[in-house]
Amino acid sequence: MFPLRPHDSLDLTPEAPSPRLITEIGEVGLLQIVQRYCPTQVVGDDAAVLEPPQGQLVVTTDVLVEGVHFSDLTTPAHAVGWRSVAANLSDLAAMGSRPQVLVMGLGLPASTPIVWVEELYRGMQACSEEWGAALVGGDLCRSPHRFVAITALGAVQPGRAVQRKLAQPGDWLVVTGPHGDARAGLELLLHPEQGAGVAAAEQEWLIRAHQYPRPRLDIVPILNGIPDPLRIGGMDTSDGLADALIQVCQASGVEATIDLERIPLSAALQQAFPKQALEWALYGGEDFELLLSLEPAVAQYLLQQLPGSACIGEITGWDPKGTVHLQGGEILSRQCAFQHF
Amino acid sequence: MFPLRPHDSLDLTPEAPSPRLITEIGEVGLLQIVQRYCPTQVVGDDAAVLEPPQGQLVVTTDVLVEGVHFSDLTTPAHAVGWRSVAANLSDLAAMGSRPQVLVMGLGLPASTPIVWVEELYRGMQACSEEWGAALVGGDLCRSPHRFVAITALGAVQPGRAVQRKLAQPGDWLVVTGPHGDARAGLELLLHPEQGAGVAAAEQEWLIRAHQYPRPRLDIVPILNGIPDPLRIGGMDTSDGLADALIQVCQASGVEATIDLERIPLSAALQQAFPKQALEWALYGGEDFELLLSLEPAVAQYLLQQLPGSACIGEITGWDPKGTVHLQGGEILSRQCAFQHF
Repeated sequence: MFPLRPHDSLDLTPEAPSPRLITEIGEVGLLQIVQRYCPTQVVGDDAAVLEPPQGQLVVTTDVLVEGVHFSDLTTPAHAVGWRSVAANLSDLAAMGSRPQVLVMGLGLPASTPIVWVEELYRGMQACSEEWGAALVGGDLCRSPHRFVAITALGAVQPGRAVQRKLAQPGDWLVVTGPHGDARAGLELLLHPEQGAGVAAAEQEWLIRAHQYPRPRLDIVPILNGIPDPLRIGGMDTSDGLADALIQVCQASGVEATIDLERIPLSAALQQAFPKQALEWALYGGEDFELLLSLEPAVAQYLLQQLPGSACIGEITGWDPKGTVHLQGGEILSRQCAFQHF
Repeated sequence: MFPLRPHDSLDLTPEAPSPRLITEIGEVGLLQIVQRYCPTQVVGDDAAVLEPPQGQLVVTTDVLVEGVHFSDLTTPAHAVGWRSVAANLSDLAAMGSRPQVLVMGLGLPASTPIVWVEELYRGMQACSEEWGAALVGGDLCRSPHRFVAITALGAVQPGRAVQRKLAQPGDWLVVTGPHGDARAGLELLLHPEQGAGVAAAEQEWLIRAHQYPRPRLDIVPILNGIPDPLRIGGMDTSDGLADALIQVCQASGVEATIDLERIPLSAALQQAFPKQALEWALYGGEDFELLLSLEPAVAQYLLQQLPGSACIGEITGWDPKGTVHLQGGEILSRQCAFQHF
């Protein structure tokens, strides 16, 4: 785990010495710094050469843009690096696959402090090492604004990938953990005054959920322990739990009924933001948990094996529209779901 | 081949109807458009699932940023798409590998015309189809500036990847084709008045070289036809031929002697820009040709098989500094090489 740094470690007050900028060391100097974070055997060629994985190959890509997905106010460079890797690893977890390698495209203004880049790489390295993924290459280029584009490769046993379209009537809907914490952490970073009266430990919990999300790759060995045939519908909840529920039901052509009271909420969220907790759990996004649709026996096994997971509802029938009903008769709306544009 | 479009096909004069913008259709509408260009079996999940390649896996990533690598003045959307794929396929060619699949991260302002996005995808699709690479997924997000981050996967026979560090004394240095054309095409796009007195066909040739570079994947079947053991040093010349010469010599710890008169120059370049031709061939960049360091017998075979290729010098000895000598005694300078920062 990493020390919590709600603001960037750069001290930009006039008294502090100015941080050195990329423009002072140029591309060659920057590459020398960056190559410390890549395995030496793959550095320096136009591409990395790897042994192919056992099983099927899983490929995902995810982009983080300054001012959209992060800012110096909410996300220090180390956390930007961590989150950019975590977002990709969460996509691999959502397919039931184990990570192999990462490559990264990085856009930076020449006025970027060198320490920002170093911290970014340290954050990427910390997250990728924790889940056994190696950063094997990338492309650095000048850009008017900062962005990080990561592609992750994983491996899955043939025919056992988790897919959105695989939910079927009779399935239980399981979430791997609590929702809404990342949104609450963002609120505390953007509006620290909202934290008045909230204990420091709870604030830290929620901010950490936003800055240092943990991809649920712990489900992969559990799934691998279940004998064939295995059919699992699902996806990650990075765009919000409500969005994930609707996406899975639409992709599978099924309807579901959800009990909102069974959605796991952390004690920190309920104490800090009791009024907003449920809305943020459904629509906040960026929790990087998983929503899975499983046969009841498989669901029970997973619930046993994975502390903190919960069954929040079930698939009740076929429905081309993919309607998600709530206990009590309402229909779950996508209304508040995060829209990228 | 594609019709030459030196300027974007958007007509933004006041009389023309305003093009529709992304902001009018939102993320869902944009995704519907984009998914027309992806195979349906891989669309809609958090990641794509693929069969692993025969042989070793090659991974490369390349980023293009608006205002740095392209602009509406020099590169219509279709050509941005083509070049972004071509740059990655060139990296695969530089490793001696054949392309498999691509994934793409795309950053776009909400004010981007929809037709720009469609043309971008058409260009990516045209280039990837020509060399048998499928676009299998991606990530779209809002961004203050347009950028395209592509990752390409390829396959190479085990132990036969081309690498920068594999040059050895006695090798011949071979380039796969003419250099300097892309830089000349950029000049004509930025300063059309420079084209006064240059025939239309030559202008078109040079502009096409800038907008529609062709990755030299045609070397892959030739290399595959050479029996084991095969040792090839090399890289692509996208950052300039001078840079590639110095990089290969430094990575291999060898010195080379180059005959500048043997660098292939197109008739169009020599006629349109006789004074700048050699400088642009060495330092212009973005020609996406390959520089290869080969045993003489292998070099002769390649030169026979690949019309337009040329031997431009040889590796003369070991040298930890990687010095590149020119016929006549001068030392090749990196001075004008393209610096990203």
